Amino acid sequence: MKEQWVYLFDEVDDAEQRMDGDWDKVRALLGGKGANLGEMTRLGVPVPPGFTITTRGCMTYLNNDNQLPDGLWDEVLTKLAAIEQKQGKRFGDPANPLLVSSRSGAKFSMPGMMDTVLNIGLNDLSVEALAALTQDPRFAYDLYRRLIQMFGNVVLGVSDATFEKVISAARKAADVQFDSELSAEQWQAVIADFKQIVQDETGKPFPQEPLEQLRLAIEAVFGSWNGKRAVDYRNAAGIDHDLGTAVNIQTMVFGNMGEGSGTGVLFSRNPATGDNLLYGDYLFNAQGEDVVAGIRQVQPIATLNDEMPDAYEALQATAKRLETHFANVQDIEFTIERGTLYILQTRDGKRTAKAAVKFAVDMANEGLISREEAVRRVTPAQVDIFLHPRLDPEAKKRAAKEGRLLATGVNASPGAAVGIAAFDADIAEQWGKDEGKAVIMVRPETKPDDVHGMLAAKGILTSHGGNSSHAAIVARQFGVPAVVGCSAVEVDLSARALTVGSETVREGEWLSLDGTTGEVFAGKISTVPATFDDPDLATLLGWADEFRRLGVRANADYPEDAARARDFGAEGIGLCRTEHMFFQEERLPIVQKMILANDETERQAALDKLLPYQREDFEGLFKAMEGQPIIIRLIDPPLHEFLPNYEALLKDVERLHTQQEYGELSDEERRRMEEEEGLLVAEERMREANPMLGLRGVRLGIETPGVMAMQVRAIFEAACAVKRDGTDVQLEVMIPLVGHLNELRIEQSELERVAKEVMDEQGIEVPYMFGTMIELPRACVTAHRIATVAEFFSFGTNDLTQTTFGISRDDAEGKFLVDYVQRGILPFNPFQTIDRNGVGELMRIAVERGRSIRPDIELGICGEHGGDPASIEFCHQLGLDYVSCSPFRVPVARLAAAQAALADNG
Amino acid sequence: MKEQWVYLFDEVDDAEQRMDGDWDKVRALLGGKGANLGEMTRLGVPVPPGFTITTRGCMTYLNNDNQLPDGLWDEVLTKLAAIEQKQGKRFGDPANPLLVSSRSGAKFSMPGMMDTVLNIGLNDLSVEALAALTQDPRFAYDLYRRLIQMFGNVVLGVSDATFEKVISAARKAADVQFDSELSAEQWQAVIADFKQIVQDETGKPFPQEPLEQLRLAIEAVFGSWNGKRAVDYRNAAGIDHDLGTAVNIQTMVFGNMGEGSGTGVLFSRNPATGDNLLYGDYLFNAQGEDVVAGIRQVQPIATLNDEMPDAYEALQATAKRLETHFANVQDIEFTIERGTLYILQTRDGKRTAKAAVKFAVDMANEGLISREEAVRRVTPAQVDIFLHPRLDPEAKKRAAKEGRLLATGVNASPGAAVGIAAFDADIAEQWGKDEGKAVIMVRPETKPDDVHGMLAAKGILTSHGGNSSHAAIVARQFGVPAVVGCSAVEVDLSARALTVGSETVREGEWLSLDGTTGEVFAGKISTVPATFDDPDLATLLGWADEFRRLGVRANADYPEDAARARDFGAEGIGLCRTEHMFFQEERLPIVQKMILANDETERQAALDKLLPYQREDFEGLFKAMEGQPIIIRLIDPPLHEFLPNYEALLKDVERLHTQQEYGELSDEERRRMEEEEGLLVAEERMREANPMLGLRGVRLGIETPGVMAMQVRAIFEAACAVKRDGTDVQLEVMIPLVGHLNELRIEQSELERVAKEVMDEQGIEVPYMFGTMIELPRACVTAHRIATVAEFFSFGTNDLTQTTFGISRDDAEGKFLVDYVQRGILPFNPFQTIDRNGVGELMRIAVERGRSIRPDIELGICGEHGGDPASIEFCHQLGLDYVSCSPFRVPVARLAAAQAALADNG
Repeated sequence: MKEQWVYLFDEVDDAEQRMDGDWDKVRALLGGKGANLGEMTRLGVPVPPGFTITTRGCMTYLNNDNQLPDGLWDEVLTKLAAIEQKQGKRFGDPANPLLVSSRSGAKFSMPGMMDTVLNIGLNDLSVEALAALTQDPRFAYDLYRRLIQMFGNVVLGVSDATFEKVISAARKAADVQFDSELSAEQWQAVIADFKQIVQDETGKPFPQEPLEQLRLAIEAVFGSWNGKRAVDYRNAAGIDHDLGTAVNIQTMVFGNMGEGSGTGVLFSRNPATGDNLLYGDYLFNAQGEDVVAGIRQVQPIATLNDEMPDAYEALQATAKRLETHFANVQDIEFTIERGTLYILQTRDGKRTAKAAVKFAVDMANEGLISREEAVRRVTPAQVDIFLHPRLDPEAKKRAAKEGRLLATGVNASPGAAVGIAAFDADIAEQWGKDEGKAVIMVRPETKPDDVHGMLAAKGILTSHGGNSSHAAIVARQFGVPAVVGCSAVEVDLSARALTVGSETVREGEWLSLDGTTGEVFAGKISTVPATFDDPDLATLLGWADEFRRLGVRANADYPEDAARARDFGAEGIGLCRTEHMFFQEERLPIVQKMILANDETERQAALDKLLPYQREDFEGLFKAMEGQPIIIRLIDPPLHEFLPNYEALLKDVERLHTQQEYGELSDEERRRMEEEEGLLVAEERMREANPMLGLRGVRLGIETPGVMAMQVRAIFEAACAVKRDGTDVQLEVMIPLVGHLNELRIEQSELERVAKEVMDEQGIEVPYMFGTMIELPRACVTAHRIATVAEFFSFGTNDLTQTTFGISRDDAEGKFLVDYVQRGILPFNPFQTIDRNGVGELMRIAVERGRSIRPDIELGICGEHGGDPASIEFCHQLGLDYVSCSPFRVPVARLAAAQAALADNG
Repeated sequence: MKEQWVYLFDEVDDAEQRMDGDWDKVRALLGGKGANLGEMTRLGVPVPPGFTITTRGCMTYLNNDNQLPDGLWDEVLTKLAAIEQKQGKRFGDPANPLLVSSRSGAKFSMPGMMDTVLNIGLNDLSVEALAALTQDPRFAYDLYRRLIQMFGNVVLGVSDATFEKVISAARKAADVQFDSELSAEQWQAVIADFKQIVQDETGKPFPQEPLEQLRLAIEAVFGSWNGKRAVDYRNAAGIDHDLGTAVNIQTMVFGNMGEGSGTGVLFSRNPATGDNLLYGDYLFNAQGEDVVAGIRQVQPIATLNDEMPDAYEALQATAKRLETHFANVQDIEFTIERGTLYILQTRDGKRTAKAAVKFAVDMANEGLISREEAVRRVTPAQVDIFLHPRLDPEAKKRAAKEGRLLATGVNASPGAAVGIAAFDADIAEQWGKDEGKAVIMVRPETKPDDVHGMLAAKGILTSHGGNSSHAAIVARQFGVPAVVGCSAVEVDLSARALTVGSETVREGEWLSLDGTTGEVFAGKISTVPATFDDPDLATLLGWADEFRRLGVRANADYPEDAARARDFGAEGIGLCRTEHMFFQEERLPIVQKMILANDETERQAALDKLLPYQREDFEGLFKAMEGQPIIIRLIDPPLHEFLPNYEALLKDVERLHTQQEYGELSDEERRRMEEEEGLLVAEERMREANPMLGLRGVRLGIETPGVMAMQVRAIFEAACAVKRDGTDVQLEVMIPLVGHLNELRIEQSELERVAKEVMDEQGIEVPYMFGTMIELPRACVTAHRIATVAEFFSFGTNDLTQTTFGISRDDAEGKFLVDYVQRGILPFNPFQTIDRNGVGELMRIAVERGRSIRPDIELGICGEHGGDPASIEFCHQLGLDYVSCSPFRVPVARLAAAQAALADNG
């Protein structure tokens, strides 16, 4: 079949047929804007007629040395003729010209693409005819000057400021405030100047031939696909460079035809709050770009009801109809020409997290979408926003009105950040870390040397780079809000200031970032706290809970963590790290005594002192999680982690020795020296070349059995105590870092011995499960052996990732790992998202082998990946029983788990 | 079928039938000694008649509260009657008694089991009859006193020294030197004293009833299976405790019947040199134990030919016949009673490594065994002995004659060690490390705290523990010769001396150990160097080369290593670690300059200086290995390994700072302080928490591309240079520590670029293969991806074991890993022998996946496991193409590879 390059809006059926009825392919062919214009035309919505030149036309043009493909221009002319016939006007008719607009429209909306050109088809001759015909010369000349200005800027590359200077001179000369106050004659003078500017800047006159205008406009849109900003954006956002953009040519309608005319944009529901009310702005007697330009004060859409009730009613009905048809909240551009409503564009509306949730819940309740679809509509990142403070939306709006919205960049790392600008890492660190100030670190881009400053900052702003730049990766890694690739911002390091147009922010002045939206504001913007009590979110997550097959537990070490996790919807504790309890102030000295004990008696005395603390912790935990499963993991880290820093000791002892040589040691210093010398000897014995792979986890349990026995005793004494009080305890005891079945066997028999001893003493039976972390490759491949003893597996994907890759997270993150991700050597940081091909493959092997021997084995994950949506999807696919994550990630995990299940069904 | 507890020697057919014709089961049932006595009887070899009580009888007895199983005793009586009939004498006949011996005989020979009791059946009455019958009262009383002495010691537990004291008093009273000089009357007096001793020590008289003697002897053998020494030995040697021992009851023949009588032991070939000549000792007119007791001077077996040519001829014929029948060199006990030859026992002879090789080669050449069997007969450990110095066998023999062979323990770690005794680790370290003395560390047993001393010692001797004791494991781990579990040695730590019987060796006195045989000598024994030029070994390894399917390469970093490896039979270099070249004295400062360079220019300048050194190394390597493949691995370790020790710097800078506070810094010190401060800053930036998992291997290549480019340039410049001279270069370039395909892709394109550049410059084409280490679990599970780029895999099983287990070798060996192996948590040290279930499983996955995408991919191993026989067997089973090991292990690997192939065929 011959390639069709151009589709009339009412030929969308043909396009759909050619694309085998696949609407996604139609969108790829016609772009989002073109496809929706076609769809609206098919629905009978009043759309000014027009046509779309396909994205394939664009790519053929670009791949063919910027030559329009054969037949494309002929098709444009044919379709133009069809419009002319429909409208009863001819394009280029000097007496009564048909005017058109030209707009780009790719599959995904993206900044950096060609802007709109309006009023194509006007020239020196027809503008006069239009003036006569409309009896409104001011209107006609205004249209013409807009054409020259937009065409000159967008198609011919003349800077807009050059044109604006002329207008502002004209306003000054006329002593008026607004453009709309300029007279026809004054616009005529402006037009003359504009034409001269075009002649001067391009060496050619402004093209008078309407078809030449049209052709140049089309080619300019095509060419803008390869413009630097567009290419950068696609690189940053990971959009395919081969998609191309469509061009939409649409008959002009005029909101600036005086009485009964106007133009506006609206959302079918409120995109900030989610309320089911039309929301938008309207400008009486104006053409499209006036609304966004902010030159005149726009009016809320509701006022249209007062002024033009019929038009408002039609608008309301159309908005509702489009929303129902697309089953999503619509962002609509419209124009009213002398009382007649035209829809110029519709698309799914962007929304805040809060609105996204309310939309989804409301629309499901209205029957517009299913509950499954509602759950699909909200992203895990949107749920996450509910759990963190963010910039106050009202304050943002006010700031925008005050002109303090400087720019919008790539939203690389979510969250709000308010602080003073610091233009290098050292200053950022000094102010942020040493002086405790809130700092926003601003750089053209960041490098590994900057990491210390980035970690000390509340937020990061860069003018270059995208979602996978060093700044973006480090920021996400450490949860620092960041806006990157904000190309409107110029960072002048020597001046220690950033500028956006005429705005300047100097070092030490306040900036506010919204890492969730990419917005950058001058000055301080107030923040609002997390709003997890949102009833719509509760409803949505309740639905998610119905769909998901994965359980969601939390990693919690203290009773208060556990209570919060339960509030957030956790169904149990997937990981309680018992050693965290050791670090508390009153306990650490006892732990150190235990470690440094000279003999078993001393060691046991210290352990006996620790026991009541641990028991108390466990009692609180059991009470908080009554009736829900709790996995308690026995001690994991190497014991030397509990001792004072080795190098500090080394230095101090050396200092004291040297001082002693000079005979100047005080009694206190002598005492300290002796104590530290003793510590040094002990630590030298315990130091390890690679502590990650040293005496920790189960190895510690085996080599220093007293600690394990104390912990088991504390667990069971606590369980017996709360059970005596009627609390239902669902206990699971977990052994970390098991590599060999025999390790687990030894721990099992020791645990059974102590547990039985305690239960016999207390006269209470506490049922429990015995299981293991799976966090070593050897555990994965021998899972069928380990499962003969373990009743449950919990994947420790942090350590599993470290050992599978042979990468120490401490050493790699912020160092070569960033470079790896940036250069695409690794597609993402495997410590954030499970590496399915490697780590995931070992997990798959472990699941398969574990189940082969114990089909009902309980399987979960407790690494940080348990809170990462992509990893949760993988866990669902693996058929795990639950994921466990930090309490603050629990709501995210509930949604992600549901989405994984729904994706599975589809 | 009813259990048969007792088999006459001529009933071996029945036993074989019951065991389904499986000779191994016959040996298990009758013990090695019993089975061979049966086999000899079946062959018609003159064996004094007798019977064997089965090992099942023993286990039933032990498992039934030391009650003989029903029917066993009746069977003994029946079989005894059969012998009586054959011999025409009755057991217990006071007039002409049949006498028997009793000996234990388990499936595997083991120390600690019940010794022999001779002359059972004599008593106060029959000894008189025997004296009259033989007309040799001295002979009769000597037999009787021997019975009481052996029975008293072995069955009744009276110390032999008590009896010997009586004899030595008798000798003194008679003023004679040897027992044989005592008269009949003097022996009668000794007998009276012996009987009194038995009465005094056991509270009962010596049993006069012959059947009671027999029964007690049998039960004593059974009981000795559970004796402490036997149990300890089995634990140490890994022998099953459920095997049990058989008891052999055999008619006595008498080598002490005067003229034409004698007894001896012989080997069918020389067990020290391997020469095909009878070898052994003979004692005229003596009973068995006199030969080993060393009381009288034995005569070499050849002298028998002069004295009794007929008996000698019969003995020679029988020895050859047995050797041919068992197709192995035999260790034979014989007695000649008045001119008639009797064979009392035969078994495969123990042999030195040299003899083992010669036996195997000669017997294959004689057609006695196949070449395959010859290759199977020699153990890899025996081949290993050829490659290390050992105690001079002649010197050992002399020392033994001088009574300096103190004891024989478990041969835990092979090799010779000569040094002064040190009784604790601190002394061992001080003398061995600080004072450079050769030290043998002697302890009852060792603990983790002793490791520093063990490492400073030339050899280790313990009186307790077996093959899996701490001492044994650490010794093998670090290649320190060791004899452990030498229970004859008493270690007195407070006296700082060891004693064996009356011999004492004090701290600081010389000891010599043979870790290969377990022998411990007082004083210094000279050593002999390695003898790899043994022609029989060359023949044997030549045969091995025909059978093996695995190639054998060597790990060699320098030309001289490579040459040695080639001499030892290596077929290529499997691993050249280029960074080792960096550590040489003149190069290290340049390497440090490169690492600490302030900019690219400085760095490149240092690299340019390193280039000629590396090129020279590679040229030498290529020449040494002409025509054979060479795998060169690019730099692997983290760069900070090349810098001065961080803690030493930290201390020194702190010292200098402190000194400065007192205003006392010399110019030199000030200069040093500044330099060290700079180094500290650099090292702080580079330090890693877990360097094993840090910036090393391919990561280093990617992050500091200059080093890689320099190495590649050096390799190809060298290859071009030697190729120009006509040398055939088989080059393979290897990238270490690859975890992700993309890492390899980057290195491949960089390597191709530099290689092409050099080859273009030189105008020479050097074909090469590009491949990778497989040493991370991720590389194993994504091997099908990595194989799209890699043309060969080389398993780096050291790192793969570390990451699979999550165990740092540096931190674990000598620490918890020893405990793990000792307690059986791990069956062996996985850094010595491949862990098949874990590491091996990942290797299997990698092989399978790698081959799936590239069927002809070259697969090898270059970890230390490449020289370990058990691991080599596994590599063969995996179907690898070659193993690579240290040059000194190459001969061992050749043999082990052949044995693996032969096992595969069988």
